[in-house]
Amino acid sequence: MALTDTLPVSGKQVRALAAAGQLTTPTAGLALGYVQANLVVLPKDLAFDFLLFCQRNPKPCPLLDVTDPGSPEPKTAAPGADLRTDLPRYVVYEHGRAIDEPTDIKKWWRGDFVAFLLGCSFTFENALLEASIPVRHIEQGRNVPMYRTNIACRPAGGLRGDMVVSMRPIPEAQVAETIKICAGFPRAHGAPVHIGAPEAIGIRDLEQPDFGDRVEIRAGETPVFWACGVTPQAVIMEVKPPLVITHKPGHMFVTDLRDEDLGRAT
Amino acid sequence: MALTDTLPVSGKQVRALAAAGQLTTPTAGLALGYVQANLVVLPKDLAFDFLLFCQRNPKPCPLLDVTDPGSPEPKTAAPGADLRTDLPRYVVYEHGRAIDEPTDIKKWWRGDFVAFLLGCSFTFENALLEASIPVRHIEQGRNVPMYRTNIACRPAGGLRGDMVVSMRPIPEAQVAETIKICAGFPRAHGAPVHIGAPEAIGIRDLEQPDFGDRVEIRAGETPVFWACGVTPQAVIMEVKPPLVITHKPGHMFVTDLRDEDLGRAT
Repeated sequence: MALTDTLPVSGKQVRALAAAGQLTTPTAGLALGYVQANLVVLPKDLAFDFLLFCQRNPKPCPLLDVTDPGSPEPKTAAPGADLRTDLPRYVVYEHGRAIDEPTDIKKWWRGDFVAFLLGCSFTFENALLEASIPVRHIEQGRNVPMYRTNIACRPAGGLRGDMVVSMRPIPEAQVAETIKICAGFPRAHGAPVHIGAPEAIGIRDLEQPDFGDRVEIRAGETPVFWACGVTPQAVIMEVKPPLVITHKPGHMFVTDLRDEDLGRAT
Repeated sequence: MALTDTLPVSGKQVRALAAAGQLTTPTAGLALGYVQANLVVLPKDLAFDFLLFCQRNPKPCPLLDVTDPGSPEPKTAAPGADLRTDLPRYVVYEHGRAIDEPTDIKKWWRGDFVAFLLGCSFTFENALLEASIPVRHIEQGRNVPMYRTNIACRPAGGLRGDMVVSMRPIPEAQVAETIKICAGFPRAHGAPVHIGAPEAIGIRDLEQPDFGDRVEIRAGETPVFWACGVTPQAVIMEVKPPLVITHKPGHMFVTDLRDEDLGRAT
């Protein structure tokens, strides 16, 4: 953020800095109160299966917005924004292999691309912190630990796979409050999918996460597991599509939606 | 229901009667407590736009289930059921024009068909009745009055159009409770979209509904408007697709889901 002295305080400001090439770092902690989102960009011939996969698996894949084929504008989440330029960094995958990490995807964009924005855990983590519930990986300055499980997602067309979960150790006395808060954000992974015994969902060793970093579990804390936005990426990569683009982990799209919008009843 | 002396009490029983050709009449009041659903069957080339339309317009189009292309089995809403036979009656549309009202669609079924099940107002009407809130068209033995509005749906690909709403007159003292109850069923049209002045949403004359029957509005009652499942059918018919199949109005698909499932937090 070279040309600014203050942190960006809105989604729009974060996006403008990213589009200008002045923000190429992770977005955690920026524009607090604005919903941050995972990005998945696919050719239209895969988009129906993926949209169906999200509809069938809303906990790992909470849809915030889906663009019209060829349009880079997320009209619901951030009207006027450009998904080709407004994220700090992207990853381009060919046949399931990362081949580039550009700061914009203008040269990769195609007329048959459909972009999906999915809710992310930052939304409920902010709400937990406000309720004085500890979020260990933030305290420890680490990435959240993530694990493959044996919880099968509901398949859609050629897309199938097991759920990836994130884990946060929660003091036993605060587990109920944690669930209540997170259940209020169904479009940010919602209530946890599992509490306690990791082996019950196929996790052998909490000390060895499949993605992210291990975190400390203290006496009187229980591991709590949430459906994780890494799930759809893992599922897509299984089919090794010719071309897929995502955000670089942690380098999210910051929307115009407010955290409280995701807690709103319909 | 020729070969049975008692009314069917489960979704499965209703479906078995329909599949056997012994039930060809409307499903209102049958298998109370089981969620009834609207059916829309489309070729896959239109299915992406329609799935996107539903995702963008969840109030008129609350998705309960979407089948894999070619499969007539709604695996979430009623595993083992067959959408080609298990409804009492269907309507087949060619280029937007109804050409047949068969009791099964086996001869029409194609390998590229995708079937959509959408929540319906029966779910919240049952909940209103249980809370001693009157539902006038049921009292009067009529079809619910429905109106075209000037509330634009969010377009998706080639699909666009204004929302159709249903109207129920509610005693002013019970409007708040009505909203609270319906907000708990987001997958059955959820909270009303408008309360009071019909002209504010482009309705000229409550006495002349565009679909269904007029109902009496009594002193001390206010008209309350809900997003209506006729909306997606009206929007699809605008593009006059070569072939579309729906349930015949009132002749719904009865699922294995219970009303309370639609009120469950995620």
